[in-house]
Amino acid sequence: MRLHGYFRSTASYRVRIALNLKGLSYDQAFVQLREGEQRAPAFLALNPQGLVPTLELDDGAMLTQSLAICEYLDELHPEPALLPGDVALRARIRAFAQVIACDIHPVQNLKILDRLRKLGMSEEQVTGWARATIEEGLDACDKLIAGNEGPYCFGGAVTLADVVLVPQLVNARRFGVELRWPRLTQIEAACLILPAFAQAMPERQPDAQ
Amino acid sequence: MRLHGYFRSTASYRVRIALNLKGLSYDQAFVQLREGEQRAPAFLALNPQGLVPTLELDDGAMLTQSLAICEYLDELHPEPALLPGDVALRARIRAFAQVIACDIHPVQNLKILDRLRKLGMSEEQVTGWARATIEEGLDACDKLIAGNEGPYCFGGAVTLADVVLVPQLVNARRFGVELRWPRLTQIEAACLILPAFAQAMPERQPDAQ
Repeated sequence: MRLHGYFRSTASYRVRIALNLKGLSYDQAFVQLREGEQRAPAFLALNPQGLVPTLELDDGAMLTQSLAICEYLDELHPEPALLPGDVALRARIRAFAQVIACDIHPVQNLKILDRLRKLGMSEEQVTGWARATIEEGLDACDKLIAGNEGPYCFGGAVTLADVVLVPQLVNARRFGVELRWPRLTQIEAACLILPAFAQAMPERQPDAQ
Repeated sequence: MRLHGYFRSTASYRVRIALNLKGLSYDQAFVQLREGEQRAPAFLALNPQGLVPTLELDDGAMLTQSLAICEYLDELHPEPALLPGDVALRARIRAFAQVIACDIHPVQNLKILDRLRKLGMSEEQVTGWARATIEEGLDACDKLIAGNEGPYCFGGAVTLADVVLVPQLVNARRFGVELRWPRLTQIEAACLILPAFAQAMPERQPDAQ
């Protein structure tokens, strides 16, 4: 498998974690988002959305959308399970992941912030937009897992929720968000002890600048 | 079960379709988004994100995030399957759904457009934002299913992809998007023949204004 990604992309980071948790080996191809490589015809032929990550399977098939890729890996390699438990628990884990993957990240990713700049927004307004989006989403995340035991989002085993949370916290820091959710940062610390998370960190990727 | 939703919310529409496809009966509670009821403490106690849909189960548990709810219904009531086929096909169906549920809808929903207005954007700019988001996403959707047989997104059976596509096309029309994707509108027509889709249409809901 080859992961087409970018070190700082939080969605790529999710997939790196999932691949590592499953113990799968993969190559990486680096798409320089800052240089617009995702909009080059060669990349659009792989992923018509022009987004990373894109996972190229050994048969040449291309999988897109990070949550779909994570669930693909989970279905093909069930252990350790990213979506353990009963049907209702799985729904809660998916909902937590979707707060981040639907309602935070796509609203404050590079593409959207550039669009705000093109509409004449100042850097202060752009940063304010990103922060407000992240804060509102993480507030909800914190509430959605209130009362759960640790050390991870949904108890004693890593799930898809943790896979999505840890990259979003990196992103939150980048925008200067005050991390006022002790439970979330405790979960992050517990995750980063694990090699699957630590080795997937943006700064440890070959394309880190 | 009780669905807390809003007739015009595309995410609520998805869940109505899924409930109908599964042949499940449910009550509806109406959250008047235009009047801000989603931000009232009573509703935030049900869903800390203040978003519809929220599905209240018979045991009082609250499920949030429309895709998570659809997958919950699919796991509990496997027929007809919203995610049929092999692992790779399921990944493609989920990815298609996530293009809409992550990269279109949250970027142009009521909340985000109101935020743009508060930043001083004109109505023309706001509408342009919504249209650009929808067009870019539907362009990708169209490409992701190119070559698939019909009448639905992924062949002869309705899947999660159709459940998400049909509401997004209603939304596209609302913003005056020229529907330049004949394959997508053909799929919509095929879906709307089915009672599960037709009965879930916004204008047929009791809270339609």
